[in-house]
Amino acid sequence: MPLTFFAERYDSAKSSISEDLTILKRTFQARGTGLLETIPGAAGGTRFLPYILKEEANQVVETLINQMSSNTRYLPGGYVYMSDLLGNPATLRQIGRIFATQYLNQDVDAVMTIATKGVPIAQSVADFLNVPFVIVRHDTEITEGSTVNVNYVSGSSTRIEKMSLSKRSLKPDSNVLIVDDYMRGGGTIGGMMSMVDEFDANLIGVGVVAESTAPGGRAVKDYTSLMRVDAENDTVISKPGNYLEKIFN
Amino acid sequence: MPLTFFAERYDSAKSSISEDLTILKRTFQARGTGLLETIPGAAGGTRFLPYILKEEANQVVETLINQMSSNTRYLPGGYVYMSDLLGNPATLRQIGRIFATQYLNQDVDAVMTIATKGVPIAQSVADFLNVPFVIVRHDTEITEGSTVNVNYVSGSSTRIEKMSLSKRSLKPDSNVLIVDDYMRGGGTIGGMMSMVDEFDANLIGVGVVAESTAPGGRAVKDYTSLMRVDAENDTVISKPGNYLEKIFN
Repeated sequence: MPLTFFAERYDSAKSSISEDLTILKRTFQARGTGLLETIPGAAGGTRFLPYILKEEANQVVETLINQMSSNTRYLPGGYVYMSDLLGNPATLRQIGRIFATQYLNQDVDAVMTIATKGVPIAQSVADFLNVPFVIVRHDTEITEGSTVNVNYVSGSSTRIEKMSLSKRSLKPDSNVLIVDDYMRGGGTIGGMMSMVDEFDANLIGVGVVAESTAPGGRAVKDYTSLMRVDAENDTVISKPGNYLEKIFN
Repeated sequence: MPLTFFAERYDSAKSSISEDLTILKRTFQARGTGLLETIPGAAGGTRFLPYILKEEANQVVETLINQMSSNTRYLPGGYVYMSDLLGNPATLRQIGRIFATQYLNQDVDAVMTIATKGVPIAQSVADFLNVPFVIVRHDTEITEGSTVNVNYVSGSSTRIEKMSLSKRSLKPDSNVLIVDDYMRGGGTIGGMMSMVDEFDANLIGVGVVAESTAPGGRAVKDYTSLMRVDAENDTVISKPGNYLEKIFN
């Protein structure tokens, strides 16, 4: 946002706007709302980079864990119902802020996820990073045009599955951040990593809201999770994921 | 948000906070950013209701129309590629603000949409209205738990299709706003209307980003659209929808 925008809107000199921004900057930083960056020069201006402090992130995750640790969420086969959490705009905003904080200083060009429940996570993270998001699908839909298709082994079931992404959705050499709601065996995330390769793009990182504690070799080695969820015998127990060491280290 | 929150945070008297809010209120209203409502009484406080003015909404729709009216978007069968628009957080925010403006004074409890491409629209509208959103699906996924299923006739193809929604996602008597990205025959929207009935909920309204101009009796009579899109013979022509008469009347 160039300074002239504010100068015109508020009918003030650029120097007074600049002073006001300094005050805003200090306030945002002190409250952990975000970073207000001033880019100097004729084409310069300001850029707001939202972030979250460790203490607030801990509170967010603690609230998530309390909401998740309910046996009424248990579903047959060791699955967990969390559509209500992923349909709550306030919760999504907080999750988006946490992942955006991790990649604040990295050059992310696009956020990638897989339909359906990953979409709200991707949208929220993309909103805070101010970059587009792209949706990989299990089916090929006519409204996507030509697609690139990838086969992958579903980690939890060792079935071969297919995923597809519209050819026009990603430019080569894009820096891609993968996010999803839940990781079990990691097969789906692994499939998205192959997809990033197929587009000659670069993987920047992987973030999941919840990872399952179910045993089994996991295809994905490096990722950030907010929660670890143990769902067995009609019981759901949730604990903090590895986000502290990954983000606030 | 109760006034005591601000009073504590900024270490000020409630009366000074109240004065500051009056200034904010006037600024927001003058700029068309939104409405700051003060709720009196001990449990009172403030509530921010974002809206958009007619002039800005017109600009948003004009930009959308310019982006849509490109023949490179044409897909076989008279479909239109718009995944890039629906993956752009800034565009989604503007679309969300427009639909939120329409229902500013109505009691909406939830926003409903169908996977996959309706999800970003629903999330953005729900974010501005500060209510949850629920996602109807074409498939039944294990992570949704028990579902309610509805059969409907796909308007454009006269095929019988099925959609499902998790039983726990909507409370009876909820006021539901349906949104989607694209309406052709209206069969999918019609299916979601049956779904609202099945949950003993109330339909508040229907909003779509784009409606097709393709002929054929449409099942849905009352809806708001931002654009009308004509896609035939490798050509995509886009015009304003009925939003002016529906929202800014």
